[in-house]
Amino acid sequence: MQAIKNQSWKKRLEAKEKRIEKMKDITSSRIIPTNKIVQALETLIQSGDRVVLEGNNQKQASFLSAALAKVDPEKIYHLHMIMSSISRPEHLDLFEYGIANKVDFSYAGTQSLRMAQMLEDGKLTMGEIHTYVELYGRLFIDLIPSVALVAADKADAAGNLYTGPNTEETPTLVEAAAFRDGIVIAQVNELVDELPRVDIPGSWIDYVVVADKPYQLEPLFTRDPRHITDIQVLQAMMIIRGIYEKHQVKSLNHGIGYNTAAVELLLPTYGEKLGLKGKICKHWALNPHPTLIPAIESGWVESVHCFGGEVGMENYVSSRRDVFFTGRDGSLRSNRTLCQLAGQYAVDLFVGSSLQIDAYGNSSTVTRGRLAGFGGAPNMGHDPGGRRHSSEAWLDMNTTNDPLARGKKLVVQVVETFQNGNKPVFVESLDALDVKNDAGLATAPIMIYGEDVTHIVTEEGIAYLYKANSMEERRQAIAAIAGVTPIGLEHDARKTDKLRREGLIALPEDLGIRRTDAKRSLLAAKNVEELVEWSDGLYEPPAKFRSW
Amino acid sequence: MQAIKNQSWKKRLEAKEKRIEKMKDITSSRIIPTNKIVQALETLIQSGDRVVLEGNNQKQASFLSAALAKVDPEKIYHLHMIMSSISRPEHLDLFEYGIANKVDFSYAGTQSLRMAQMLEDGKLTMGEIHTYVELYGRLFIDLIPSVALVAADKADAAGNLYTGPNTEETPTLVEAAAFRDGIVIAQVNELVDELPRVDIPGSWIDYVVVADKPYQLEPLFTRDPRHITDIQVLQAMMIIRGIYEKHQVKSLNHGIGYNTAAVELLLPTYGEKLGLKGKICKHWALNPHPTLIPAIESGWVESVHCFGGEVGMENYVSSRRDVFFTGRDGSLRSNRTLCQLAGQYAVDLFVGSSLQIDAYGNSSTVTRGRLAGFGGAPNMGHDPGGRRHSSEAWLDMNTTNDPLARGKKLVVQVVETFQNGNKPVFVESLDALDVKNDAGLATAPIMIYGEDVTHIVTEEGIAYLYKANSMEERRQAIAAIAGVTPIGLEHDARKTDKLRREGLIALPEDLGIRRTDAKRSLLAAKNVEELVEWSDGLYEPPAKFRSW
Repeated sequence: MQAIKNQSWKKRLEAKEKRIEKMKDITSSRIIPTNKIVQALETLIQSGDRVVLEGNNQKQASFLSAALAKVDPEKIYHLHMIMSSISRPEHLDLFEYGIANKVDFSYAGTQSLRMAQMLEDGKLTMGEIHTYVELYGRLFIDLIPSVALVAADKADAAGNLYTGPNTEETPTLVEAAAFRDGIVIAQVNELVDELPRVDIPGSWIDYVVVADKPYQLEPLFTRDPRHITDIQVLQAMMIIRGIYEKHQVKSLNHGIGYNTAAVELLLPTYGEKLGLKGKICKHWALNPHPTLIPAIESGWVESVHCFGGEVGMENYVSSRRDVFFTGRDGSLRSNRTLCQLAGQYAVDLFVGSSLQIDAYGNSSTVTRGRLAGFGGAPNMGHDPGGRRHSSEAWLDMNTTNDPLARGKKLVVQVVETFQNGNKPVFVESLDALDVKNDAGLATAPIMIYGEDVTHIVTEEGIAYLYKANSMEERRQAIAAIAGVTPIGLEHDARKTDKLRREGLIALPEDLGIRRTDAKRSLLAAKNVEELVEWSDGLYEPPAKFRSW
Repeated sequence: MQAIKNQSWKKRLEAKEKRIEKMKDITSSRIIPTNKIVQALETLIQSGDRVVLEGNNQKQASFLSAALAKVDPEKIYHLHMIMSSISRPEHLDLFEYGIANKVDFSYAGTQSLRMAQMLEDGKLTMGEIHTYVELYGRLFIDLIPSVALVAADKADAAGNLYTGPNTEETPTLVEAAAFRDGIVIAQVNELVDELPRVDIPGSWIDYVVVADKPYQLEPLFTRDPRHITDIQVLQAMMIIRGIYEKHQVKSLNHGIGYNTAAVELLLPTYGEKLGLKGKICKHWALNPHPTLIPAIESGWVESVHCFGGEVGMENYVSSRRDVFFTGRDGSLRSNRTLCQLAGQYAVDLFVGSSLQIDAYGNSSTVTRGRLAGFGGAPNMGHDPGGRRHSSEAWLDMNTTNDPLARGKKLVVQVVETFQNGNKPVFVESLDALDVKNDAGLATAPIMIYGEDVTHIVTEEGIAYLYKANSMEERRQAIAAIAGVTPIGLEHDARKTDKLRREGLIALPEDLGIRRTDAKRSLLAAKNVEELVEWSDGLYEPPAKFRSW
């Protein structure tokens, strides 16, 4: 045993200073000229670096990702990319060109097909697939970045950043690099003398570059009510009656599907008729969904904390600051890390959807030939083992007298028994198992494990899985609501009554819902125009959602 | 269904502005004169407010808590306090005087006895007991604060804060209030013209007050190696050999006990002899433990991310910035929220200790008449259901061929079979069950649930609980290492060989460890003075740890 002598303990700092020294030819301040960004990246990044590139399912550091794809692969190669989302073509071009060779990520969306192909062709080494906050956690442990490339709305000359409604994951990515002698480069839409507020202090930022155009921003959480079907209205009624009312669900998160948009739009109509206002759905961990506007305007919603922003909702949010988290400037403050933490630990319920569910309730959106990843669902959609506080809904999931028993987070899957294209959702074996083998993954890419799912809702009814006392009972309850899918067909219809009596399943009629009442006419807004009306003109939908 | 008309949507902002308006008599800037703090609190806080008061197990907003206890209970009453830690007498005086009447918290430490008594006397209404991040999560959902009272090292005239090595939970508490039109008041040790770096932007802070003396800061993670016993050395050897080496544990968190301090001090001696350097214990989620200095100096440690700082370690940390997260000024950047997130999702292993463990491995530090709470252990000490990435150690916990099987976080409990005072640690029934009934809690205050525990280490050996195929096997494995406690005495010694053969338990000799080798002389440092030597004089222990 002996101490290492004459060692430098600031090699990271020295390496950073050396790179910054070389920037003298490009800029004498912390502002990089827009047209010199490629040269700047070639100066500040070195082969083998771990590079965090901002981009989740909403906001993308698109100017920086495009510039990175233009660096000389003879100079910069073998980067290890860390990206919440692989969403843009150049994200994979980096690997095609040899600039990068390894990736750790959370979600691959539209690039999932090409990604799987590149993996097969050996053009890319995959690290691991994560849920968002898991990836963020590793930034402080074993994936500490050398460089962070992020996006903000505005900067001042001191490098202070204003991220406005889309703060999202920026502060977390910056913190991991800035406080470990990494290099932080922020693209901004504009440089200003005075910021509306400071979201990230300038002493955390090394360089700022004004992008050639504003960063890419997707209106991902906008669901046009026109596309909500009667079946989705039926499912939404079952959710309100058979889950939210039954368990007194006060705090929750919704996924981005039309099913949950229907729930939001039924609160001021069906929910109101049931006398539930003020009793359920008061506190939300949710992006600013336009479909939540009627519920907010009707006084249902006490608070909404957001992962990110939503295009077109900026003015509405600013005008409803008793409901949303906003800064002094009045605009939204989102924070993906804190909202995921709140969504994991502090809400009663998560509702999401899936492409495949097996006989025991395991589900995945990964299908053959696609490496889609997870996003935030695994974090929101599990029972957090570290939770110690109780709520009425949480305690309601306890079905035993064990003195050590506790409650459980409500994790709801809502699906129709068949996807578009007549593919069954309920399957004997998930495609994820094949993907595991094909891609050589250590574990199957399951989105939500069956043991965490407390309820499944289909157009047939609700399965109350938290009440199942055995795997066999769980299977029966799922089969009973799985329609004419392979899993549903194995159901012995004679068992249905017993399952209903025992409360393991509920059909619409058990909940006092007539299928014939489930009509689109129940929706508080039937199209985007009506959402705009509800908002008093404050909601400004992107052009593609305007039809009037 | 109809929109609420003529409603103000900025009642929170209006309420805030009204309070700030009244501050004119006290100050014309954002600086509150030190001697007017009580009057300022009486102006800025109103009865019934939800008040977050900063104070965890290390840093305390002690000036503000003392001032709050001096407000007139005729003017300010029925506050709902939210506090990570109830640590100072005035924290409970608030309830004694009637200023506050309800509390949500994480940890009660030295005040746990008085707290239980006050609860019994009806002087205090308890909300819930939380793990740290769970409480933080609720600040954004259903415990949104009206006022946040926090502590920082320095502020400038614009209200920018420097929190230095003890950033801890301050940014999270401030964010919850600042972005919901709450009022943020920060006590600082000094006002300066220019900050070494900005940890929290001034636009998040409403008022700054210079405290009469620096905030309270406890050297909670300093363990004097003089107090480490031979038995703890034996346990540490078993942990290194039978857990870290066996499972190739690369990233981890240690609790604050002498057992884990012994592990840290054995890495450069016993660990080095086993040839494990560079193979285990590379990445840490850990406060700057002085007992980690020899391992750092010997080149074992690649990175340490910290929940908080540690008194006396400031200069050492600054001089080892390749290992620690530091700001531009060179001093530590800690972050309790992010480190808890990393410790939950991104490390292979957690080791902690407990006061009581039952026959199935459930454990608690709650004992009769004390409401101690949890701190961070429930978050670190459970298998995170949202984890999707794998590591060697994590995969090693999988003992089945199920295609859906995944790994598991290693959660290790290390205890001696008896506490001081000859109280058995292994008990048939946890005191927590009585506390549940006495205090009317919804669930028993369990620190770590048995289902999450993968290993228990005593002076007798290791129980590999992750290998147990039934509750009965789990019970047997625990009993076999429980010595002469009630649980241990029920063990049929004839079963020991079978358990050893099946790898359900390991005795020291099974790990190639001779009990007679387990001596304090193996410790890389035997006292605080030697830690200082290892650090080249950079570690500056507080006076109470100096004996030379």
